[in-house]
Amino acid sequence: MAELGKNLIGLEWSSQGKAVLKAVNPKGLAELEGEFYTSTETEVNRAMEKAHNAWLAYRKVDGKSKAAFLRAIADEIEALGDTLIERVMQESGLPQARITGERGRTCGQLRLFAQLVEEGSWTEAIIDTAVPDRQPAPKPDIRRMLTAIGPVVVFTASNFPLAFSTAGGDTASALAAGCPVVVKAHESHLGTNALIAGAIRKAAADAGMPDGVFSALNGEGYRTGQLLVEHPQTKAVAFTGSLRGGKALFDLAAKRPEPIPVFAEMGSVNPVVFLPGYLSQNTEKAAQALAGSVNLGVGQFCTNPGLVFVLDHIGLPDFLAALKTAFAGSAPGTMLNPGIHRNFEFRKMGLLKETAVVTEFEWAGDADETQLQARQAFASVTGQDFIQNPHLHEEIFGPFTLVVRCADPQELANAVTALSGQLTASIWGETGELNGHTGLIDVLQSKVGRLIFNGMPTGVEVCHAMQHGGPYPATTDSRFTSVGTTAVKRFARPVAYQDCPDEILPAELKKDNPLGIWRTLDGALSKNKG
Amino acid sequence: MAELGKNLIGLEWSSQGKAVLKAVNPKGLAELEGEFYTSTETEVNRAMEKAHNAWLAYRKVDGKSKAAFLRAIADEIEALGDTLIERVMQESGLPQARITGERGRTCGQLRLFAQLVEEGSWTEAIIDTAVPDRQPAPKPDIRRMLTAIGPVVVFTASNFPLAFSTAGGDTASALAAGCPVVVKAHESHLGTNALIAGAIRKAAADAGMPDGVFSALNGEGYRTGQLLVEHPQTKAVAFTGSLRGGKALFDLAAKRPEPIPVFAEMGSVNPVVFLPGYLSQNTEKAAQALAGSVNLGVGQFCTNPGLVFVLDHIGLPDFLAALKTAFAGSAPGTMLNPGIHRNFEFRKMGLLKETAVVTEFEWAGDADETQLQARQAFASVTGQDFIQNPHLHEEIFGPFTLVVRCADPQELANAVTALSGQLTASIWGETGELNGHTGLIDVLQSKVGRLIFNGMPTGVEVCHAMQHGGPYPATTDSRFTSVGTTAVKRFARPVAYQDCPDEILPAELKKDNPLGIWRTLDGALSKNKG
Repeated sequence: MAELGKNLIGLEWSSQGKAVLKAVNPKGLAELEGEFYTSTETEVNRAMEKAHNAWLAYRKVDGKSKAAFLRAIADEIEALGDTLIERVMQESGLPQARITGERGRTCGQLRLFAQLVEEGSWTEAIIDTAVPDRQPAPKPDIRRMLTAIGPVVVFTASNFPLAFSTAGGDTASALAAGCPVVVKAHESHLGTNALIAGAIRKAAADAGMPDGVFSALNGEGYRTGQLLVEHPQTKAVAFTGSLRGGKALFDLAAKRPEPIPVFAEMGSVNPVVFLPGYLSQNTEKAAQALAGSVNLGVGQFCTNPGLVFVLDHIGLPDFLAALKTAFAGSAPGTMLNPGIHRNFEFRKMGLLKETAVVTEFEWAGDADETQLQARQAFASVTGQDFIQNPHLHEEIFGPFTLVVRCADPQELANAVTALSGQLTASIWGETGELNGHTGLIDVLQSKVGRLIFNGMPTGVEVCHAMQHGGPYPATTDSRFTSVGTTAVKRFARPVAYQDCPDEILPAELKKDNPLGIWRTLDGALSKNKG
Repeated sequence: MAELGKNLIGLEWSSQGKAVLKAVNPKGLAELEGEFYTSTETEVNRAMEKAHNAWLAYRKVDGKSKAAFLRAIADEIEALGDTLIERVMQESGLPQARITGERGRTCGQLRLFAQLVEEGSWTEAIIDTAVPDRQPAPKPDIRRMLTAIGPVVVFTASNFPLAFSTAGGDTASALAAGCPVVVKAHESHLGTNALIAGAIRKAAADAGMPDGVFSALNGEGYRTGQLLVEHPQTKAVAFTGSLRGGKALFDLAAKRPEPIPVFAEMGSVNPVVFLPGYLSQNTEKAAQALAGSVNLGVGQFCTNPGLVFVLDHIGLPDFLAALKTAFAGSAPGTMLNPGIHRNFEFRKMGLLKETAVVTEFEWAGDADETQLQARQAFASVTGQDFIQNPHLHEEIFGPFTLVVRCADPQELANAVTALSGQLTASIWGETGELNGHTGLIDVLQSKVGRLIFNGMPTGVEVCHAMQHGGPYPATTDSRFTSVGTTAVKRFARPVAYQDCPDEILPAELKKDNPLGIWRTLDGALSKNKG
């Protein structure tokens, strides 16, 4: 790994800066191999200029070639083999099975986008043919399709070192759309980033993609991110992380001379509602499902269920007891980095000390601080106190959940209505019981991007129908998703061609439909010529 | 017109305020009938609260009922007959034929959106069916569709008192999406707004739509707009007007505790390129087409061609001479309001005084100031001076255009490359000639929402394929359009249902596909059950 510490600027490795960063193993906090040069302003500018120049060519690269490039990235990532898996484990503290699974998801995602752009209908071609003899004026021929918006800056997530990172969903969907990508590497995953960047570099070179189609820069704190977001050639930003971080980028982008879209996925508390009929019939099952989801990956998922709504009815003590047993059966796990661990313990402890909050369970056994092990916990609060204290609605990132004990269905509805925007909500009920709660389901739907029935929110399927996004503060733009094939739409904008000669039209819009894609032709979907 | 001066808040007319506005006839500046009460903060809040409550019901109204409502609005507008036409003429100074045509466009637009939502495929249903036995984990059933984003605030345009106004494209597309609308009436069209608001009110009441699905408020200056954009129940903003106005709303929306999308269409200079072969063969035709487009509607279109790029070649003097003749044949027309007239004359005069600018033509005959008549003009500048003076790239709203005389094709390419985002660009060339300029066409495409071949940008077709929008500063979000059926996408966001019982699913997503709409089913478009 001779290039381990350098920034990747197009096809070139660069280390002009003097400052270096080191990666740390969360298990024991030892420094890992590699000195990572932070990028200088000159390097940031060169990456963005290269990205702009690459865009001029890359936006016109046909779907088949982009598909081959995306597949080559997946192949190169797999070719890294155990070198990659080991480095990710060292940098994240996550277990091997999880990392192997996440690599599969990352490569699967790249190949899914490859399939999408190879097929080509994602460009939403719409054709209205001319009516030359229309009165009072002729109707022109207008043909519209989606085209690449320009260079995209990607900020990577701490909690998915592969799938939401250097070659994650944001990068894959931007490259699929025809947009060059400049990644700001996560400070916790510097080596992982370098390995993946090298894989993308090789794929780009082998596929003959324009120099600058991909860059990856190291940087400490806010400065590199600010330079990237403020660069005039940056045309969109994707981010996965905290509300504070995402909002800061959103504000920077809004203040630019030319404002640009920021797609920030900032997490949420993912409320889970257990209807009373279900809970009394399935006490154990509900408790185990909830505990499993809260503690999965040491609670470090943006879809972690951080709020649970139940009625304070006769079966509740049994459920809380079962939940305690389930929580006690989960061993403390290592968190991703010292900041996340510190923040979790601090915020959890603060909450548990509040008068209105009842500590139902907190891990009392061993938890090794030097291994950043988190003490999982859950607490409860009345519906009334929950409604009156909006700070109880906020995310505590880690293995924690808050059970809201509602006095009656109306209080439960009020508590749910008081929530802000969420990535997901889940509702558990017997078949007939769900049908009796359509009003509550409507309220939940109005708050979320994804509504789950009798299931937990963790485990975000990468597919066509996935919506991973929701009203603010879950994301900065609820009209888009960061997971699933429609994520590509974030980085494309429509262009209409009026009375354009057929030989000049892009293949997607030509009369003969040479790509054989679905098009809306005079108002009706078809693959016809026209 | 007993209710002429009041604010419409849902189904109720309201006049709590003390301040009144008067409408003025641009032809002679006489005050028109009616005292219009400006809305108070209480009235603004009531309109937004009603809109929110209406949204809870209206977002679930089926497509057929929404279609009937939209068609009823069109019918009620037509039923206003000459009363409407006369008031619009009095308030805008526009001729009868134009207003009658614009009414046709407005009603046609409402009916086109009715057709869209009645058919139903606009909701982009995507279904990935379950694979219960998938390894290592079962694949859930996920079904996604677009749903209404929430109450939309619409700021109306000065230059289209009907088609981009109270019942214009923004209102029609928001109502089609399932979003209640609160209109801020334009100060120049207070009576027109009241008449149209009354028509929508009657249509809403007759169709049994929820109270609050539509409101229209009067207000002076910035204050009412600010209250509307900052109201917590406002979920999106649509605006057509100046860069200054649109950017101010964008900034307000970005600073909210919950930022919301603003779709501001802020106009552009709409560059027109005449390639030399075409120009030398069609000197007269080109001059007449350009003069016709520049002077159409007294130059008051957001697609007005404000910049013309030509090579400084042997045929140019003939073209400029023909253009002078064509401009001289157009009589000065009345502008929309005193502010627009004052601004046009001031900015035009400022430009014509600049050293680098050659005044090629300015109307020297009579022009009645009391009738707000504009003196049409055009000027020229060298390509080099144009590139070096970015302020020459800015829009002068009215009957004016600037011819950029480029020394050679490279300078022309550089001049076009220096442009910021535009709604449109047009290129005129002989068939073979266009094929020889694909590089230039690529540059133009990268700047615009619509690229026109051998045609002028004025005359925006309302159809499925229209893209009326473009990179900033043409609009605040190039990924959307304000004209054409896809305008509905601005006001909808996707929601995914995971493992939802069929009886609870919206009709669009039910297994049997009862609406018979196009859906992406396991990756392929079809109308199949699934």
